[in-house]
Amino acid sequence: MNFAYSPKVQELRERVQAFMDAHVYPAEKVFYQQVAEGDRWQPTAIVEELKAKAKAEGLWNLFLPESELGAGLTNTEYAPLAEIMGSSGLGPEAFNCSAPDTGNMEVLVRYGNDQQKKQWLEPLLRGEIRSAFGMTEPGVASSDATNMQARAVREGDEWVINGRKWWTSGACDPRCKVMIFMGLTNPDGPRHQQHSMILVPMDAPGLKVLRPLPVFGYDDAPHGHAEVLLENVRVPYENVLLGEGRGFEIAQGRLGPGRIHHCMRSVGVAERALKLMCQRSVDRTAFGKPLARLGANFDHIAECRIEINMARLLTLNAAYMMDTVGNKIAASEIAQIKVVAPNVALKVIDRAIQIHGGAGVSEDFPLAHWWAMQRTLRLADGPDEVHRASIAKHELGKYISREMLRSR
Amino acid sequence: MNFAYSPKVQELRERVQAFMDAHVYPAEKVFYQQVAEGDRWQPTAIVEELKAKAKAEGLWNLFLPESELGAGLTNTEYAPLAEIMGSSGLGPEAFNCSAPDTGNMEVLVRYGNDQQKKQWLEPLLRGEIRSAFGMTEPGVASSDATNMQARAVREGDEWVINGRKWWTSGACDPRCKVMIFMGLTNPDGPRHQQHSMILVPMDAPGLKVLRPLPVFGYDDAPHGHAEVLLENVRVPYENVLLGEGRGFEIAQGRLGPGRIHHCMRSVGVAERALKLMCQRSVDRTAFGKPLARLGANFDHIAECRIEINMARLLTLNAAYMMDTVGNKIAASEIAQIKVVAPNVALKVIDRAIQIHGGAGVSEDFPLAHWWAMQRTLRLADGPDEVHRASIAKHELGKYISREMLRSR
Amino acid sequence: MNFAYSPKVQELRERVQAFMDAHVYPAEKVFYQQVAEGDRWQPTAIVEELKAKAKAEGLWNLFLPESELGAGLTNTEYAPLAEIMGSSGLGPEAFNCSAPDTGNMEVLVRYGNDQQKKQWLEPLLRGEIRSAFGMTEPGVASSDATNMQARAVREGDEWVINGRKWWTSGACDPRCKVMIFMGLTNPDGPRHQQHSMILVPMDAPGLKVLRPLPVFGYDDAPHGHAEVLLENVRVPYENVLLGEGRGFEIAQGRLGPGRIHHCMRSVGVAERALKLMCQRSVDRTAFGKPLARLGANFDHIAECRIEINMARLLTLNAAYMMDTVGNKIAASEIAQIKVVAPNVALKVIDRAIQIHGGAGVSEDFPLAHWWAMQRTLRLADGPDEVHRASIAKHELGKYISREMLRSR
Amino acid sequence: MNFAYSPKVQELRERVQAFMDAHVYPAEKVFYQQVAEGDRWQPTAIVEELKAKAKAEGLWNLFLPESELGAGLTNTEYAPLAEIMGSSGLGPEAFNCSAPDTGNMEVLVRYGNDQQKKQWLEPLLRGEIRSAFGMTEPGVASSDATNMQARAVREGDEWVINGRKWWTSGACDPRCKVMIFMGLTNPDGPRHQQHSMILVPMDAPGLKVLRPLPVFGYDDAPHGHAEVLLENVRVPYENVLLGEGRGFEIAQGRLGPGRIHHCMRSVGVAERALKLMCQRSVDRTAFGKPLARLGANFDHIAECRIEINMARLLTLNAAYMMDTVGNKIAASEIAQIKVVAPNVALKVIDRAIQIHGGAGVSEDFPLAHWWAMQRTLRLADGPDEVHRASIAKHELGKYISREMLRSR
Repeated sequence: MNFAYSPKVQELRERVQAFMDAHVYPAEKVFYQQVAEGDRWQPTAIVEELKAKAKAEGLWNLFLPESELGAGLTNTEYAPLAEIMGSSGLGPEAFNCSAPDTGNMEVLVRYGNDQQKKQWLEPLLRGEIRSAFGMTEPGVASSDATNMQARAVREGDEWVINGRKWWTSGACDPRCKVMIFMGLTNPDGPRHQQHSMILVPMDAPGLKVLRPLPVFGYDDAPHGHAEVLLENVRVPYENVLLGEGRGFEIAQGRLGPGRIHHCMRSVGVAERALKLMCQRSVDRTAFGKPLARLGANFDHIAECRIEINMARLLTLNAAYMMDTVGNKIAASEIAQIKVVAPNVALKVIDRAIQIHGGAGVSEDFPLAHWWAMQRTLRLADGPDEVHRASIAKHELGKYISREMLRSR
Repeated sequence: MNFAYSPKVQELRERVQAFMDAHVYPAEKVFYQQVAEGDRWQPTAIVEELKAKAKAEGLWNLFLPESELGAGLTNTEYAPLAEIMGSSGLGPEAFNCSAPDTGNMEVLVRYGNDQQKKQWLEPLLRGEIRSAFGMTEPGVASSDATNMQARAVREGDEWVINGRKWWTSGACDPRCKVMIFMGLTNPDGPRHQQHSMILVPMDAPGLKVLRPLPVFGYDDAPHGHAEVLLENVRVPYENVLLGEGRGFEIAQGRLGPGRIHHCMRSVGVAERALKLMCQRSVDRTAFGKPLARLGANFDHIAECRIEINMARLLTLNAAYMMDTVGNKIAASEIAQIKVVAPNVALKVIDRAIQIHGGAGVSEDFPLAHWWAMQRTLRLADGPDEVHRASIAKHELGKYISREMLRSR
Repeated sequence: MNFAYSPKVQELRERVQAFMDAHVYPAEKVFYQQVAEGDRWQPTAIVEELKAKAKAEGLWNLFLPESELGAGLTNTEYAPLAEIMGSSGLGPEAFNCSAPDTGNMEVLVRYGNDQQKKQWLEPLLRGEIRSAFGMTEPGVASSDATNMQARAVREGDEWVINGRKWWTSGACDPRCKVMIFMGLTNPDGPRHQQHSMILVPMDAPGLKVLRPLPVFGYDDAPHGHAEVLLENVRVPYENVLLGEGRGFEIAQGRLGPGRIHHCMRSVGVAERALKLMCQRSVDRTAFGKPLARLGANFDHIAECRIEINMARLLTLNAAYMMDTVGNKIAASEIAQIKVVAPNVALKVIDRAIQIHGGAGVSEDFPLAHWWAMQRTLRLADGPDEVHRASIAKHELGKYISREMLRSR
Repeated sequence: MNFAYSPKVQELRERVQAFMDAHVYPAEKVFYQQVAEGDRWQPTAIVEELKAKAKAEGLWNLFLPESELGAGLTNTEYAPLAEIMGSSGLGPEAFNCSAPDTGNMEVLVRYGNDQQKKQWLEPLLRGEIRSAFGMTEPGVASSDATNMQARAVREGDEWVINGRKWWTSGACDPRCKVMIFMGLTNPDGPRHQQHSMILVPMDAPGLKVLRPLPVFGYDDAPHGHAEVLLENVRVPYENVLLGEGRGFEIAQGRLGPGRIHHCMRSVGVAERALKLMCQRSVDRTAFGKPLARLGANFDHIAECRIEINMARLLTLNAAYMMDTVGNKIAASEIAQIKVVAPNVALKVIDRAIQIHGGAGVSEDFPLAHWWAMQRTLRLADGPDEVHRASIAKHELGKYISREMLRSR
């Protein structure tokens, strides 16, 4: 439980925050204008400018932990930076630290062969292309990931892939060049060894991006969340990562750092929502008093502060455990933050919306959009329910074996 | 506390429900297609068809209580019909029972002169035109309605109006021909006698619909929620309703039945969300069981059923009190349902979303859109906080006078 | 949904309330003094005086619905009286309407033979003796009532009973003369036909009251909640009620009206807690204002009012359904109130405690004791969880058969 | 944010936990027996035995931070020990680390003169006597501490004290020899400089312990929470601590470490409640499954684990801030834990009670008693509401000055 910010981290925090203040926050309005004006599904100039600036300042690929390719930060060190970046929807991409690219790059670093690294990892690290991750499917309850039905069948030196994925975030963006597809390859294997991860170029014949899925009313263009159809898509056999039937093994490793990133971003967005809430509550007056002083608003502000602080400490502690005792021992803690962070962010943002009145649900403030994004995080990468069950089993494991719990 | 459905009401419930089943629910997809395909800000053919059918079946203007113009139903009698109509976003307009037209028509019936009735009320009753209500303003905390700053100044036989309104629902629709504007006319009067309601034709020079305001990304086209600018708009002096400084007096009367309508629609939408939730929870399987049988889902379904039943009973009882003892004595009860109904609907819909997984936040189900609509109802017509304060003052009034509570 | 108070009910409400004001509330302090001063486990003089007065005023045995022995009130008619009686811990017994006697008397009316009625029912109706109900057992999870292990074995013309019961309320009172024992008689029968109800005199050899069980430190003397040991207790075979293996059948019928009574008493106690809360909040001052005007207190008062109103309406509606369509069709509604009423009372009382500060948790106000009593009601007669599961199954039964839900 | 357990702390944790396992937990039943059997208001032999053992093992006065008299632990170091001690109601006194003695000793170390230290501090440190703290009053809303009305008037070399205090914990115990009285001495001073702290021997003529106040139904004998009457009590003038009108100054300093102690004890009790909950949930079976696997129980267990972890981290962080930046800068964090820890403990214990069924509210498990104790902590040392207001003001202070917030 030592997650005090080291001098190195403190310096990076200041630089990242200064970059946010100087470049990212002011770019938000411009971004929405550029999306609204042209073809919403083309990348915006403003984001490319932000990326160039961040790269020039050396604030680039900070997420990558175990590699000379990144900044060499531990999870504990990167977490406070993810919080700051996450305080704007534009932040993560500006620093080339946005999902799903970060997780995909980590997978490529560990499991890609030289040719795959050259083809996909290097342009991803340079921020020239983007990538997608294809796991969730429309036809089954994806809360149980073993439900995945999309098939990859080996034919000679190739995989032949058929199936339908959705919530494939980023696949609508023309810069997206490759998808890590996860599907059923070994249906006769043990429950968690039936699925594999396979690299699929987005321009492979038979791969069709059917539509962007809106989240509440937001299409999140030009990134977007795609429904993707794969019909007889053929890719080389060596595109399978790590090995057949090892999809869940990769997924576990891939998700660990990603959970920290996501959760710290949720903390960051909650922190900024609280700031907006406080500012509005002192700037507007009703019944002769600033809103802050009316009714339960002190309580609401206090609760937000408390919940954000707790969510941050819990997440930092999970990062610290990942760094010190490893993902496996930290499994319960990682599941805990996955439940806590989005729910805290939702509560804080909802209260901020309420203080803002009609403005809160409109586009004049980012609150409603943030709320919608955070709401999806109670579903993405496993719904709250699945994570709580896993925390409970871990807890009960102190008193009874998993087998006995299951059999009784 | 007698709100058993009379045979007349029971017969109307069946007819309205049959109409919903046969025509309205199937029209939902068509509606979204028609909006997406053409100019989103033009009325859709499908809604006009629904209106024609409902009119032909005599299911038209059911809301209007004290007039031969409507069905002559009491609030208690109309409430269960509003619940059914409210179970689809298209329902209320199909029966010419949608806000803000219903409230505006009621106002015109009571306070309009013959010419105004002929010009505005009659085409509204026929469903040929629509109307708007301009109260909330972007520049002030509208939770305190006396904050309203838009001015109407008398010059001879005319009002000269300047100001800015927003959340003027329906004003984006080209069929919208008249707005009931509420603004400051008598700034030196007592606090609740400074504002008046004035009829303003939408085509009056100086009135500009600036933009539609999105709600969590939804523009609700072609209805929309407009920001409206009024610059030196001139209308005849007799367009003031009831009299100068009597805006709040009208507002109180206007809101009573509207509260019942809104709340029963919230109940209706919650009921349909629970239905979707139950269906999904038995249709989809995870971890070898239907979702219904997993974790806390029984509890969630039970809580939804309980909360909906309580919200319905509370609303029916408020309607019954309005009919038997009047709006004034029922003031606390009316405030109570205003708090309860949208919050219950939000909880039910949110749980339904969670059961639906990613599909729940998408456009494939109406849940996310319903959630966004219900979320605005915690702000519209006064935020929860204002209504709770009014309930509390009413309760404390049993033990202490309002003056003593204020002065101490 | 017609539960308007009839003139007869309105008149009874006024008489019962007047009796509470004149006699019961003032007796509360006296009661605690009398318990504290003498042997806590002897009946108090004050309660006997209250009973005599109520009997003299004809406010006696109002609960008994289908019999010339009682007041002939329907559930809908009796419910509002139970609310008033329940507003004091002394109320129900004063009117000879207290649990578990009411349920036991109903059972005796329906299933007792002449001799049993003469021996037990008549003195119970006269308020001369009291009775107990033995169901819950310390050794098993009683949330699943079929877990009950206490055995009654037929030997010739007798039952031989062995087992241990607890939470046998009232068994510590020397006036308690008979227990309705429920236990395992037919272990080979279908799951809900293995248990029977048998009348057991409290002075039967082998029956020992081991100890009173405190509830949050309260022993509830002289009534008390007993742990009871039965060792080779012998009673005549004809003491079995209705028939062997029909214990659950009786339990279902017995619990229906009892649920209404309990829930309306919870509503009554919540209503009185809100009254105390309001009074304290205007009588005490902090930071220069009455407590009522500080922070979220308006919201808390409003929430209490709303929740009480909803709980009352839900309970009245359940009573109305029991009267009009029967317990079986009203099963979900009866389960709903069982969850709602104690939880609402707990929330209201807890808020009232908070407003009272230290006084709230002390004996100077009845709040802490009420809270403890209500807390047990989330466990007694089935925990919340069991009732919610039953509500959910009922709801899902609209879409899937119970068998399919279970088998999938 | 570095609160990793140092080797010294880790070693102490193990020793304290071993002592709890070997001596304290097994003593709990004995303690209740000894209290029940003799005069409840005399100290028990078992606690004196525990104290002797702890002293012999050098686990004594661990709380005292800045003095050679104690173990010299920082708040960060002591906090994890307080958690373990707090997992039993007997723990803190066994180690001579119980409230209110700890706070009183700290005050005496800092502000007592030599004679006062000799007379009171030394026997307190040896565990020979106990002490009380007299602040809360029955006649006023003590949430606003400036409401205190008990008067101390100087007459020559003496204070003459009149007034009434309650919730004077420990004053019922015959070992209690001195009270730190806080009362009004300088009514004309600024709001927070009107009150002083004065040492009052419990045997001073005119001081009467009127009655023990029960908490829910618990009298907490032999410690007890007393109502105390002071009538013309005379003590030497030098008994005033620090100086006239400086009572609040001392109170602020006194409360800081005490908050950490209290909150960590709440965490400790919550942790043990969760343990009981898990054990019960795997040991008992209903509907053919261990309770753990029924309904929402996984969710409840997970929520308990999450909330306990967050409460612990928040408290450790507050302790760390107190140690590194001081109580004043840590004021918001200290207020935050005061709100969080008891509320988390209450939630966890309540869920544990529910899993235990009737046993949970009885004396067979410590859960109900713990719940009652934790419930008082939402009131003691300021109710939640006051702390939340102070957190909110601190938060808003980032955007507006306190004066502007107040004046607007």
